[in-house]
Amino acid sequence: MRLRNNPKAVDILKENSELVIVDVEKIAYILPEVFIKKQPLYLEIGMGKGDFIYEMAQRNPDINFIGIEKYPSVLAIAVNKINKKAKLPNLKLMYYDAGKLEDVFTDNQIDKIYLNFSDPWPKKRHQKRRLTYKSFLDLYQKILIPQGDIEIKTDNQILFEYNIMAMNNYGMIIDYISLDFHKSVEAKDNVQTEYERKFSLKGPIYKLIAHFK
Amino acid sequence: MRLRNNPKAVDILKENSELVIVDVEKIAYILPEVFIKKQPLYLEIGMGKGDFIYEMAQRNPDINFIGIEKYPSVLAIAVNKINKKAKLPNLKLMYYDAGKLEDVFTDNQIDKIYLNFSDPWPKKRHQKRRLTYKSFLDLYQKILIPQGDIEIKTDNQILFEYNIMAMNNYGMIIDYISLDFHKSVEAKDNVQTEYERKFSLKGPIYKLIAHFK
Repeated sequence: MRLRNNPKAVDILKENSELVIVDVEKIAYILPEVFIKKQPLYLEIGMGKGDFIYEMAQRNPDINFIGIEKYPSVLAIAVNKINKKAKLPNLKLMYYDAGKLEDVFTDNQIDKIYLNFSDPWPKKRHQKRRLTYKSFLDLYQKILIPQGDIEIKTDNQILFEYNIMAMNNYGMIIDYISLDFHKSVEAKDNVQTEYERKFSLKGPIYKLIAHFK
Repeated sequence: MRLRNNPKAVDILKENSELVIVDVEKIAYILPEVFIKKQPLYLEIGMGKGDFIYEMAQRNPDINFIGIEKYPSVLAIAVNKINKKAKLPNLKLMYYDAGKLEDVFTDNQIDKIYLNFSDPWPKKRHQKRRLTYKSFLDLYQKILIPQGDIEIKTDNQILFEYNIMAMNNYGMIIDYISLDFHKSVEAKDNVQTEYERKFSLKGPIYKLIAHFK
């Protein structure tokens, strides 16, 4: 998501270095220092205001979570929200461009990736920016463990159609798909994003889980 | 689709041997006699009352069409409807079990297969009867030419989710997908089935085109 630029955002993030990984260049090497416990590592790419990743980290103390957001102004809002809640030792955030993730993570370092309500980039000429474009899938395959899942939710029909085609034609295995997730039995334990809470009233939420062969 | 059994149905079909291929056992060998012109051959499996395949054959005189229906009582209705319209030399019908198609067609004989609003067989224990179950895909791959398309339409969400997963896990390439086909630009030239005309008012029509690798 994008917001009006907040010129103080980066300062806010730097002041919260307990929650925000600021020195991202070395993250692959400093991970043992970042998290107290060595346990599986899940990423959310495009974490927005952070409701999803906070609740996931709270519910799953035996998993480490890193939320990634491209825009410092958005991440600063998430930081302010999370600072009002209980501290979670298994949750870190960073502002970073998803396209460069292989610069900061090593191969097979991530156990699972979440893509929630990603920017649909509806124009065909912007297709390369969609987070399931081939170059991103190449990247996820590198940093994910073998059989590591990618879990996607969106309300955008065009993006979801694209996701299915892109992941299928890449040779990924689809393990779960729902064309109306909120009405499915699996939605019982669903952790919602702030966007999802709002937009699920307007139409179906699509969900897909897939892994690389 | 199923209907109350019509005890005269098979007689009606036999009386219409110009339209209905009765001696199906030999179809692979008698095809040059069945159709006047040698041209691509498209199948519709589960043709129901025949509106779709009749209109397709009418619009595409340079393609031969065979409509297949399991239930003679249903096919008899289609025959009675089609007999009221102009005769089409490129349209034939047969009543036959889709699971046995390799007994009547040779390898690489079919250019395209349509599965329109197939029975969803919603119970998990009936999964093997769905027309995209692995054993059916094995069969289609045999009788289709390399790169031959399978084109699916349905209004059934559960069946469509199943189709995506089954075709994905089989390794097929998805060339087109729409989660609300009637609202897409591609629907401009859509030929509707009788069922589709009725049920598209109640919710989205899903469409998918895929081919074997």
